[in-house]
Amino acid sequence: MKHKSFKKQNKKWTTEELAKGILASNSIILSQTITLLESTKEEDNKIAREVIELILPKTGNSIRIGITGVPGVGKSTFIEAIGQEILKENTGNKIAVLAIDPSSQKSKGSILGDKTRMEKISVLKNVFIRPSPAGKELGGVHRKTRETILLCEAAGYNYILVETVGVGQSETAVHSMVDCFLLLMLPGAGDELQGIKRGIMEMADIIAINKADSDKDIAANTAVSNYKNAIHLLPKSDSGWITEVTSCSALNNFKINLILDNIIKFKQYQTIKGYWIKRRNQQSKYWIKKTIEQYLINSFFENDNLLQQIEVKEEEVLKGNISSFKAAEELIEIYKKNLKTND
Amino acid sequence: MKHKSFKKQNKKWTTEELAKGILASNSIILSQTITLLESTKEEDNKIAREVIELILPKTGNSIRIGITGVPGVGKSTFIEAIGQEILKENTGNKIAVLAIDPSSQKSKGSILGDKTRMEKISVLKNVFIRPSPAGKELGGVHRKTRETILLCEAAGYNYILVETVGVGQSETAVHSMVDCFLLLMLPGAGDELQGIKRGIMEMADIIAINKADSDKDIAANTAVSNYKNAIHLLPKSDSGWITEVTSCSALNNFKINLILDNIIKFKQYQTIKGYWIKRRNQQSKYWIKKTIEQYLINSFFENDNLLQQIEVKEEEVLKGNISSFKAAEELIEIYKKNLKTND
Repeated sequence: MKHKSFKKQNKKWTTEELAKGILASNSIILSQTITLLESTKEEDNKIAREVIELILPKTGNSIRIGITGVPGVGKSTFIEAIGQEILKENTGNKIAVLAIDPSSQKSKGSILGDKTRMEKISVLKNVFIRPSPAGKELGGVHRKTRETILLCEAAGYNYILVETVGVGQSETAVHSMVDCFLLLMLPGAGDELQGIKRGIMEMADIIAINKADSDKDIAANTAVSNYKNAIHLLPKSDSGWITEVTSCSALNNFKINLILDNIIKFKQYQTIKGYWIKRRNQQSKYWIKKTIEQYLINSFFENDNLLQQIEVKEEEVLKGNISSFKAAEELIEIYKKNLKTND
Repeated sequence: MKHKSFKKQNKKWTTEELAKGILASNSIILSQTITLLESTKEEDNKIAREVIELILPKTGNSIRIGITGVPGVGKSTFIEAIGQEILKENTGNKIAVLAIDPSSQKSKGSILGDKTRMEKISVLKNVFIRPSPAGKELGGVHRKTRETILLCEAAGYNYILVETVGVGQSETAVHSMVDCFLLLMLPGAGDELQGIKRGIMEMADIIAINKADSDKDIAANTAVSNYKNAIHLLPKSDSGWITEVTSCSALNNFKINLILDNIIKFKQYQTIKGYWIKRRNQQSKYWIKKTIEQYLINSFFENDNLLQQIEVKEEEVLKGNISSFKAAEELIEIYKKNLKTND
């Protein structure tokens, strides 16, 4: 079966074949389509995007969970643990794990690039793991991640876990594509927080204090109680949901079931309050707007004729020669002239 | 003096006259220029903006303080109290109070519109109070507020207080135009927080728990201690500054001097760490980018030919007929065609 599919790599798939394969839960065809999506060739992207429009009616039927936390908090181990818990809960469950890791471009390594990670669940047939596309500008990665979520849903994955490092610029974007945003923290909070970006705490629907050894773990209990108190001082979410804080140990599979319970509880709460669908609708509108904005901004800030001018104007503003607004207006004038010349 | 200047209203000021008047600290001419800035006529805006370029070398010499908090927290009383404290500190100090209140369009009232407010300091000659321009789109208001800051600085105001309601969409913009972001809270935190937008807590450089009656005020002391604990659980700022939390009573002028001390301490800390100028430079770049983005986005989303199409596509996305990205692409195509037709 596998061999047969791999042979197919040598010739082109049709859009219909790909869509059919995905809807039939063929994970090799799913992979192939994601590869087309991540390709640097526009013709490949075009095919993948046609597939997305075809499978669209079969999307949406999953819990999309964002998982974030600083390096060292134990994200992969946590995903392994909660993944096993999800599969235990219902034998029909299927999990897709995606990752966004723009920082990997600097460190030359991808979040999920290390083959030794997630070895327990990566071998299971109901689990699909996909590392982040490397070497791409951030806006593009986010779009592709959202598109990959749709493809995975069409292939029958009903739990989508999207992993980010929590120190980059991806968290707002991920928050805008998931139903539930889970923040992993360490007991004895303090120094490890320095890496986390401001604003992320207030985005979290669920906080899990990982690396708690037992119920007697004083540091973990203190952390839970501190975070619970802190949560009460932070603004509530639109739906009124109060961020759940629980300790757990992914390594020892301790209280991971409670985290999953919190996710399910959150889904029920949001659904009853009408916020499950409301948040998704807001996200759909957000991505229309965001995609257009990104196009407009790229057409300006990635315009070769403008790049040097932008730097020059910035310099002038920092020197105090012109205001930021004057600089912006002058750049817009150049941009407009360029538009006309190009026509 | 006043009469002489007011007569001038009937004829046009030259750009040079306005700039000269502002640099001579003439508050009537300052007001006039801000009115030109806020005018709906583009020719007026143009004059005001020319003035800004002229006075630019004389700007920057102030502490720009953003003050936010939910309605009822006592912002005006607080501004009166800290204003008096600032004037007490040094007789040469001059204070400008500006306000951004987009919500006033709904409530038909402006933050500073009520004449009975700030009656203690509004009569002082070293104090300049300017209500928010009403009935304008948000992006424009923000730009005008930043431009007004520059005009006030050129007129010699060395403390600029920018007031927002803390429940709207202005806080990120204000945070991007001030040196110090001050959040006013109430003791017995909880319910009053519901109105505050998520993310604002983490933006605050200084938190003041207002309406504390004395040092024996248990609710206030508990609130201070709770917020201090919460702060330690939140990510630190780039400079490493830890948000100061103090109780005070603006009404009884209790510990308002400590809040001012915190502001001065914050300025010293940021300056030593190099973040005072760094934050301003980042803000200058931010406003170049933001102004350009706003122009591009308006040229799209305020395009009459597109408005109806945007709604149609949104509807199709929410119905699940097309993806957000497909909708965005189709809208971009229409936009491009429009551009060509217009040329």
